[in-house]
Amino acid sequence: MKKRLNIGILGLGTVGSGVLHILKEHQEKISQVTGYTMGIKTALVRQIEKHQNQTDIHLTTDVETILKDPEIHIIVEVMGSIEPAKDYILQALKQGKHVVTANKDLIALHGNELTQVAKENHCDLYYEASVAGGIPILRALVDSLAADNIKKVMGIVNGTTNFMLTKMAKNGLSYEAVLAEAQALGFAEADPTNDVDGIDAARKMVILSRLAFGMNLPLSAISTGGIRSVTATDIQIAHQLGYTIKLIGAAEEQNGTIHGMVGPMLLPNEHPLSGVNNENNAVFVTGSSVGETMFYGPGAGELPTATSVVSDLITVAKNIRMHTTGDGFSHYQHETKLTAKEDIQAKYYLRLNMTDQTGTFLKLTQLFAAHQIGFEQIIQQPFDQNSAMVIIITHQGSKEQLDQAIAGLESDSDMVLKARFDVLEESICTKDY
Amino acid sequence: MKKRLNIGILGLGTVGSGVLHILKEHQEKISQVTGYTMGIKTALVRQIEKHQNQTDIHLTTDVETILKDPEIHIIVEVMGSIEPAKDYILQALKQGKHVVTANKDLIALHGNELTQVAKENHCDLYYEASVAGGIPILRALVDSLAADNIKKVMGIVNGTTNFMLTKMAKNGLSYEAVLAEAQALGFAEADPTNDVDGIDAARKMVILSRLAFGMNLPLSAISTGGIRSVTATDIQIAHQLGYTIKLIGAAEEQNGTIHGMVGPMLLPNEHPLSGVNNENNAVFVTGSSVGETMFYGPGAGELPTATSVVSDLITVAKNIRMHTTGDGFSHYQHETKLTAKEDIQAKYYLRLNMTDQTGTFLKLTQLFAAHQIGFEQIIQQPFDQNSAMVIIITHQGSKEQLDQAIAGLESDSDMVLKARFDVLEESICTKDY
Repeated sequence: MKKRLNIGILGLGTVGSGVLHILKEHQEKISQVTGYTMGIKTALVRQIEKHQNQTDIHLTTDVETILKDPEIHIIVEVMGSIEPAKDYILQALKQGKHVVTANKDLIALHGNELTQVAKENHCDLYYEASVAGGIPILRALVDSLAADNIKKVMGIVNGTTNFMLTKMAKNGLSYEAVLAEAQALGFAEADPTNDVDGIDAARKMVILSRLAFGMNLPLSAISTGGIRSVTATDIQIAHQLGYTIKLIGAAEEQNGTIHGMVGPMLLPNEHPLSGVNNENNAVFVTGSSVGETMFYGPGAGELPTATSVVSDLITVAKNIRMHTTGDGFSHYQHETKLTAKEDIQAKYYLRLNMTDQTGTFLKLTQLFAAHQIGFEQIIQQPFDQNSAMVIIITHQGSKEQLDQAIAGLESDSDMVLKARFDVLEESICTKDY
Repeated sequence: MKKRLNIGILGLGTVGSGVLHILKEHQEKISQVTGYTMGIKTALVRQIEKHQNQTDIHLTTDVETILKDPEIHIIVEVMGSIEPAKDYILQALKQGKHVVTANKDLIALHGNELTQVAKENHCDLYYEASVAGGIPILRALVDSLAADNIKKVMGIVNGTTNFMLTKMAKNGLSYEAVLAEAQALGFAEADPTNDVDGIDAARKMVILSRLAFGMNLPLSAISTGGIRSVTATDIQIAHQLGYTIKLIGAAEEQNGTIHGMVGPMLLPNEHPLSGVNNENNAVFVTGSSVGETMFYGPGAGELPTATSVVSDLITVAKNIRMHTTGDGFSHYQHETKLTAKEDIQAKYYLRLNMTDQTGTFLKLTQLFAAHQIGFEQIIQQPFDQNSAMVIIITHQGSKEQLDQAIAGLESDSDMVLKARFDVLEESICTKDY
């Protein structure tokens, strides 16, 4: 008979229930690939009554029951938030228990500390489910792309906002209308700030950067914007110009330094990320050797996220069998150096309203010329009786100079900047032969 | 100082040169993640003179120099073809050397035997580069999706034909014209049979099926078609009907049985595989829990394929460090059962020429009705003075009944079947809310 590995699970919400389901449904395969039977022994819940009919596993409201149980080998943390999850995980690691977590906030903010404690206690700590739900992107970066020098990681890593932008594009709806719809469907929370302002995506970029570049990109160094300023008009005009607007998180290496951003970005329609719709996620990785690869799939949801948690559990089980636990998820580390602002290149989409009088347009072009920023495309349309709407796609230039030109624009009372989004320069996959 | 792992490489063509390049360029990262310095000690080549200026590593025309060298720990086989590659690999494994190969033909046809010999000799045998070049799909199936029951694997796994179909679609060119262009660019061989008739793709489906389902789908059981019968007309009509034609390899599990096919397939335009263009590859995996994921990237080429080879080398090096070599790439195995033909569902696109006289169309509809196959869409256009071109997209039905209806059609002198392609039923990712 195969030896049993006991799991203690902290939290029995959506993802926790999914983990329960998968461990039960796929037990034959899991047992074959790991050499163990794996099952949840005890679950930490807030209210025992709420879950009594859901499962026959042991329920507790006291975390000590799990942390002090010598029969429990692995802890799955799917509570979310920083505390008390962090405290519980630290205690578990110090007791010699391996940990699998889906907690992106915790890993983004305290991943290094937790990794260090795991190492000191010869324990495994895995967190595949913390980024892009069911997409095995972290393992791909650490294992499969280990042979390559990764130059750029760029992704649609927030399902809520991707659902919203897809709806806006397909049905010509406003931000407010799709937000209400996303909330009604349970894709967006009552307070959508974390999603729509790009905060969730920025946290995921911290985790992706750590594994892709071996560096710690601080959250505060990620230039972070959200989708509140995206209008149906922007989406429609971008489409006419050959672009699709997506909320993109990107981190890029440049001469040993890195920089990151989150914000709405215009992608060429032929770019693989442009076709990633609804609540799906995708991460596009550029390596100096492999070129461009993309990993696509469900970014959230009970079973997809739980699949990633269970794949981590399988890895821990294999490590236990091979006596190789505690080796760490990634060995790739570099001193973190941030790219100086003057070295960052960018290309912008700008939408502004301008008083419709002789000379304003000249002022605008003089302003950009003074900062050596050229225009790739310009569209001017009447906005109302006294003003015009102007859309500009700039050429690529220094981000610092671009931002100086924009500061000049914002200080001119004849012009009002309504939207400023990044534009992706052509990449290999959108080029023709 | 770090211990050195010596590699012997069999073949120094495109992929071999790429491996050389990557091991040199990325040595710092590779050394950090593995704990070893890795380098090629000796290369087996056909003509030493040809490579003397290319590299300063030791060149030999005698394989024994490598196989009998006790300082060489790992063999990289990038010669291609079955023999003598198979013989060399068997000898290497029996000498206790680990093997990394990019040889899809060998792994498709003799993978089980080689895996068995590797196991008996406690050696590693990895072959990530054998399917879809730079895309880490095999490791994703074995590690990341181990937690899931995989239901279907479907992919664009042949870059040559995808390049050709992309060109035909974009420029309205004929099969013959794009074949000539692909040959001129070096994407297609002088004898393109293996690519254009789907043989290469079928071999890759054998490998994918083995890892996805733990079963051995014999090459002879894969219904295999190629792109010779695809015309610019088909591509254009399909596009009008909302579909993109791609050469698809698919393998699907159904109640513990599997079946596979390779052939041109009409995919809904919104399907992520529809946007995979030029020589790129992508593998679309459906799991019972994770849902739909896709892995996209370069399917061939010097550096992408070499990246996969080197990622396997890194895995071997980690296994050596952890003393866990010889554990096998995949532990997932099932008795192979093929799906009975009457249980396979299909949906077809048919293009036929029909004599333009009263009653022929009635005969056609009666024929399909007799086999209980309904039509989803029909287009009839004049072809020449005496005949009409008819395009049919059937409803989904039993493949056996569909094929019987088609046999009836082919035995009728008033109808000539010009093309028969599969049509993908709608999947989750193409559905709207």
